[in-house]
Amino acid sequence: MRVTVIGLGLIGGSIALAARGRADAQTSGWDPDPSVCARALARGALCFASGSLEDAVKQAQAVFVAAPVSALAQSVAAVLAAAPADCVVSDVGSTKREVLAGQHDPRFLGGHPLAGAESSGIEHARADLFDGASWYLTPTESTEGLLYERLYRLLAQFGAHPEAIDADTHDRLLAHVSHLPHVFANVLVAQALAARRDDEKRLPVAGPSFRDATRVAGANSAIWTDIYLSNADALVPALDDAIARLAAVREALRRRDPLAITRWNDAAAADRRALSAAHPSTAALEELRVGVPNRPGVVAQLALELGRAGVNIVDMALYPAPDMSEGVVAIWVAGEPNAARAQALIAGLGFEAARP
Amino acid sequence: MRVTVIGLGLIGGSIALAARGRADAQTSGWDPDPSVCARALARGALCFASGSLEDAVKQAQAVFVAAPVSALAQSVAAVLAAAPADCVVSDVGSTKREVLAGQHDPRFLGGHPLAGAESSGIEHARADLFDGASWYLTPTESTEGLLYERLYRLLAQFGAHPEAIDADTHDRLLAHVSHLPHVFANVLVAQALAARRDDEKRLPVAGPSFRDATRVAGANSAIWTDIYLSNADALVPALDDAIARLAAVREALRRRDPLAITRWNDAAAADRRALSAAHPSTAALEELRVGVPNRPGVVAQLALELGRAGVNIVDMALYPAPDMSEGVVAIWVAGEPNAARAQALIAGLGFEAARP
Repeated sequence: MRVTVIGLGLIGGSIALAARGRADAQTSGWDPDPSVCARALARGALCFASGSLEDAVKQAQAVFVAAPVSALAQSVAAVLAAAPADCVVSDVGSTKREVLAGQHDPRFLGGHPLAGAESSGIEHARADLFDGASWYLTPTESTEGLLYERLYRLLAQFGAHPEAIDADTHDRLLAHVSHLPHVFANVLVAQALAARRDDEKRLPVAGPSFRDATRVAGANSAIWTDIYLSNADALVPALDDAIARLAAVREALRRRDPLAITRWNDAAAADRRALSAAHPSTAALEELRVGVPNRPGVVAQLALELGRAGVNIVDMALYPAPDMSEGVVAIWVAGEPNAARAQALIAGLGFEAARP
Repeated sequence: MRVTVIGLGLIGGSIALAARGRADAQTSGWDPDPSVCARALARGALCFASGSLEDAVKQAQAVFVAAPVSALAQSVAAVLAAAPADCVVSDVGSTKREVLAGQHDPRFLGGHPLAGAESSGIEHARADLFDGASWYLTPTESTEGLLYERLYRLLAQFGAHPEAIDADTHDRLLAHVSHLPHVFANVLVAQALAARRDDEKRLPVAGPSFRDATRVAGANSAIWTDIYLSNADALVPALDDAIARLAAVREALRRRDPLAITRWNDAAAADRRALSAAHPSTAALEELRVGVPNRPGVVAQLALELGRAGVNIVDMALYPAPDMSEGVVAIWVAGEPNAARAQALIAGLGFEAARP
């Protein structure tokens, strides 16, 4: 497999290292900063560094665009213009609607690995950065099934858990599980410093809850201003909701209402338990084989339907018929109940899922 | 040293283990639940278990009241009524104004260790729970200096960093560095679950920022309802401030204002750096010797003045004159600049600090 990475920072560099180390891929890459390219070569992330984006992608079978969110749409367009017909092109942006808007190229498939580190740059890239991490994929009705499967298997080789999701849902969920915690962290550090009286020189000593909650405060503005703004449509209503919830707690405290406070806190405990249940299952894998017409969008449709229903696809494989007119999608899910639900969901889409 | 612990949960049990293991103290204790007493004996936290609170404290030189915040004032009063004249009595409550209100006994000294664990109960108590932890002390003008020193040295033997602070400042700072992060954590988990559309069964996959920010969501209501309510006076204005700050971010996002977002995020980065600078110094220790009249409140006055100015007392010792009419307080601070500032601050209080 020939894998190209455009943009060789922490994420791009880690993709190149994982592609080479885990998937035995031949890696090439390009970065607007030539010294970054040189360091990626020196670290062994790349087999070849290219002098231009076009040179880097012209032989590729899979391209990852790891550019900043603000430069993403432009870089993706340049890659698609130069990449071969049989090449899957993905990105790693933290928001997905913008990059997908008006994008109907069957080779493009939006992506977002839920991984990162406190330090950025190729120096901190690691082949194991994606071990056990969720990696969202946002296929659309124009996505080519064979290219979806190729990317899916490559990410699984990196150690990641790929999961299909539509771009709207992705951005709304991320507003809540990533962007809002970042906003809260910023507010907490600002308030902690501002809370001192004028004669108070001591800095507040932070306990573990504060340290945990503020680890991401003031994250790199070059990246985060773009993320906040590109997801403003989802983040503004999330902030309205947060403000309303804080105002309700404030009122219960002002009334000195122990019942309301206890009820609210107990509900949070239940919510936290529900969320921590969202872990990969350890049940035995069950296989489903689905006969489908070989046209773009079918694999995406299956993956999105199962994702929405909370049925995680643990593995997948495509077996096209020799004339490419139709094929079989094999899907593995964890446990008998998930297999039964998947079978019913697939039937609802008009396909038949056999259980071999 | 004879140390008594009233209330043998995670914190009380850990105090007993640390007193026995680190300070070679003889430990006794009492808990309203006799089976908890029995387990504390079995774990080796106590040398003796007593049948009543009164029996437990009557021979004590230091008593820690580790009762829930709602039962604290009553337990402290019962301990003071039964404890000897030469015994320091402290508590471990997360808020300090309530327990100090109307409390003028020279033997009482409010305390609050910034330590905890995800699991409660004597089973999870550990002698090393306070290693490196800040332990706030709230002396007042009635606090006896020799008793302050005794408690200070005991906590230092536990591995903690004792720090003097007035109760109002303590509660305002804690509203910001502990209670507000807990409120935010509760709001985050509630929103993450509520953000799903009706047809969306999947649970949001949480990245590291969400996991860190929600680790304390839904913390034990039996403890936290009391903490929130006892600190409502400080927490309500902190929530008002938080709401105003979130509304400002929301407005900048609605306007799609990259400059405002960048400025706000860069300020948070600077705030976070400032807060992480609040770590114990590694500079060489400098000694100051202060001659003071031997009356309640003087040591508290020195400790509070240095604390407010951000000068951390790394160690202290009291040397009373034989007739107890006056004495010398020796104070160690880290580095020459802190020593010079401490000398000036002490002079401002009307005392002379010699540098031997």
